[in-house]
Amino acid sequence: MNTMHPIGFDDACALVAQSLCAPLGKEQVFLHDAHHRVLAEDIFAPDSMPNEARAMMDGYLLQASLIDAIQSRDSIDETFVFSLAKVPLRAAQSQIPLESTEAHKIFTGAPIPQGDYIILLLEDCSEQDGKLCVPRAILAAAKRGQYVREKGENYNKGDKLLSHGIVLTAAEIGLLAHLNLVFVPVFVQPKVAILCGGDELVDLGEAPQGEHFVRSINNHFLAMLVREAGGIPLLFPLLHDKQESIMATFLEALKSADMILFSGGMSVGDFDFVPHVLTQESDSLLFYGVRVKPGKPAAVAFKNGVPLCGLGGFPNSSFIAFHFFARPLLASLAGARFSPLQLCATLTEDLSKNENRTEWRSCALWAEKGQLYVGRGNRGKIHSAAINHLCGHSGFVRIDEQTSILHKGSIVTTLIPTFSNIEIRQTQ
Amino acid sequence: MNTMHPIGFDDACALVAQSLCAPLGKEQVFLHDAHHRVLAEDIFAPDSMPNEARAMMDGYLLQASLIDAIQSRDSIDETFVFSLAKVPLRAAQSQIPLESTEAHKIFTGAPIPQGDYIILLLEDCSEQDGKLCVPRAILAAAKRGQYVREKGENYNKGDKLLSHGIVLTAAEIGLLAHLNLVFVPVFVQPKVAILCGGDELVDLGEAPQGEHFVRSINNHFLAMLVREAGGIPLLFPLLHDKQESIMATFLEALKSADMILFSGGMSVGDFDFVPHVLTQESDSLLFYGVRVKPGKPAAVAFKNGVPLCGLGGFPNSSFIAFHFFARPLLASLAGARFSPLQLCATLTEDLSKNENRTEWRSCALWAEKGQLYVGRGNRGKIHSAAINHLCGHSGFVRIDEQTSILHKGSIVTTLIPTFSNIEIRQTQ
Repeated sequence: MNTMHPIGFDDACALVAQSLCAPLGKEQVFLHDAHHRVLAEDIFAPDSMPNEARAMMDGYLLQASLIDAIQSRDSIDETFVFSLAKVPLRAAQSQIPLESTEAHKIFTGAPIPQGDYIILLLEDCSEQDGKLCVPRAILAAAKRGQYVREKGENYNKGDKLLSHGIVLTAAEIGLLAHLNLVFVPVFVQPKVAILCGGDELVDLGEAPQGEHFVRSINNHFLAMLVREAGGIPLLFPLLHDKQESIMATFLEALKSADMILFSGGMSVGDFDFVPHVLTQESDSLLFYGVRVKPGKPAAVAFKNGVPLCGLGGFPNSSFIAFHFFARPLLASLAGARFSPLQLCATLTEDLSKNENRTEWRSCALWAEKGQLYVGRGNRGKIHSAAINHLCGHSGFVRIDEQTSILHKGSIVTTLIPTFSNIEIRQTQ
Repeated sequence: MNTMHPIGFDDACALVAQSLCAPLGKEQVFLHDAHHRVLAEDIFAPDSMPNEARAMMDGYLLQASLIDAIQSRDSIDETFVFSLAKVPLRAAQSQIPLESTEAHKIFTGAPIPQGDYIILLLEDCSEQDGKLCVPRAILAAAKRGQYVREKGENYNKGDKLLSHGIVLTAAEIGLLAHLNLVFVPVFVQPKVAILCGGDELVDLGEAPQGEHFVRSINNHFLAMLVREAGGIPLLFPLLHDKQESIMATFLEALKSADMILFSGGMSVGDFDFVPHVLTQESDSLLFYGVRVKPGKPAAVAFKNGVPLCGLGGFPNSSFIAFHFFARPLLASLAGARFSPLQLCATLTEDLSKNENRTEWRSCALWAEKGQLYVGRGNRGKIHSAAINHLCGHSGFVRIDEQTSILHKGSIVTTLIPTFSNIEIRQTQ
């Protein structure tokens, strides 16, 4: 039967974590198109970095022994003069054999011959009549190997530089450019069917029939959440509260989608057929009902290995259920791991609850001098149907199942969905 | 002259904050395409939410007076029976006048007539022979208005729901769908020319001429950073160290770009012509040189109102300079505000420095039970030329100009470039 048997929130999260899927497959894409995609293979260093000793700064290269000799000598000279080789050493040039008594002008990145060298900075020295003049203080402070990058100093040939499963941001794209990977192996993006329903719903731009209707939020909201999670949303037309048409759409979605999200029609009312699909038509039901607010009517099931997630009809419910139950499964299909980001923050006012379930309470979220704070902000009454509380600088405060009040000033756990949810009030 | 006059890091940040640009302009885009774009107008509520009283849950609607009467009466009955109206109230239906003694089955979202009502949850009651049976405990605990959402409870007509300048994530797209905005006013994305140079550079996929070359990272790295900041990168061919060709490319870029990034050729070496362009060819120079590591050769100038940012040739330098100096300017052109996210974290080992400039030291960054930690991780020697230190779970620890050591266990300021820079080791 399609009766709800709510389980604990942490139990539901643990069940999801035990039911992750294998990645769908790999493909090759052009480096720039790999941005924000999931890397499908480990990347090892084909060579050491640097692959030979190199100059770290523009300056003058001298044999270390030359400087040693001067440093060990008592002298009252204020400036030391070295003969200067005619040809400066540049990165693009081949190695030039160095006379032990000559200084060579050298540019950042230029290779340095094998041996024991010191680089003096360009701005610390001066040139006069083809000679290099170095003040006593600069020479005295010079250390063997200064401004010289040793071979393999950053990494060695064969080191693992990137692990498969990471989401590629600008830094990783830069590294892959350095390794000259024009094409990058990434995991195929999961196609996620979005089935939202309810006879009262009217879709974006659609003219309503009659006075009482609800403008559909969740199909668009979930489509964007799927994108943010690295999936490709497949928007299905809004479902009507008819079991046959819901079944038909479900079977249709199964043909093309790697995952199916249901939203709406998840409660136990007469017109809610989605629980029937999830509980009766699936191969295995992980859970139906979670003691969490919002998100109680959440369900996770599998059909032919395809994860089916029922997310509740209200935007807030579907958001929490998506984040904790659907997104880890979606990430696993995409070859990545996802854990919702939960950081501690200082609560700026009391928060109480009276229901016996874990609650994620929408709150204003801000950083001030590096510390996170949460409070009600200028929120009106919060309700799962209203999505405005999730917008802008909003995070969620966790109130444990057994907790009835969180006190002002206490350190609480917050869920931070995206970076832009954090308002930066003062940085330093 | 193109001599560097390094200023303090915080002074440089303050100068940038005082030199922000006006947004470029507005355009209309389809709701889904507005995802991750910057909202160009404030959005006000066209109606109250809810626009009339509505049921919060599936259940039974009763006049509050009916319950009051029972609650005030001493009774030993274990179950109370109410007559039940034949037609349930659904969201899609018009208002039905209610008999004061009848209970109405009601579904989530259904409008409630004006008056004083209570909703009893579906799962707390039962139906028998067309009558509604309610256990004593449920009735005793029932509170006036329970599970009823009052008109305007979440927000009122005319309230500002979204402010221009925010980046639209899934939640805001959901709200805009609710408001039936098929098209959304967003700011035009700035086109950012990327001019990277150095004779030693060989571009992605290009066959090197000779043995000593450096594979170009920064043009691709910066292109992705520009994307992450909401701009459109315009990649120019790699520049050679020739003043005329640099000038020609600069003038070409000025024609099409809203902002120009230079990388490479920023130091004071013989072959660095970019400082000449920034200091001599601009209308105003904000600074050239910052006491920061990495990022010392950074420069910001303006030409015809177009921000020109010199970012240093090393990836680490260009990253720090981009984040603190270029990105706030880019964001302002895009109509948004950007402050780098800096959060406090616990340092897991000593970090020392010997140079007299503010340093942003690349470190491993992780969250454990809601707390942020930073440490060296398995980093080899860090060098600005190597980009591997910026990859994966990497943040930056700030070491102040006057600080020579940060001690293990102390609370330090970290720069967190993206969410995926935080490794989640344990959530609860």
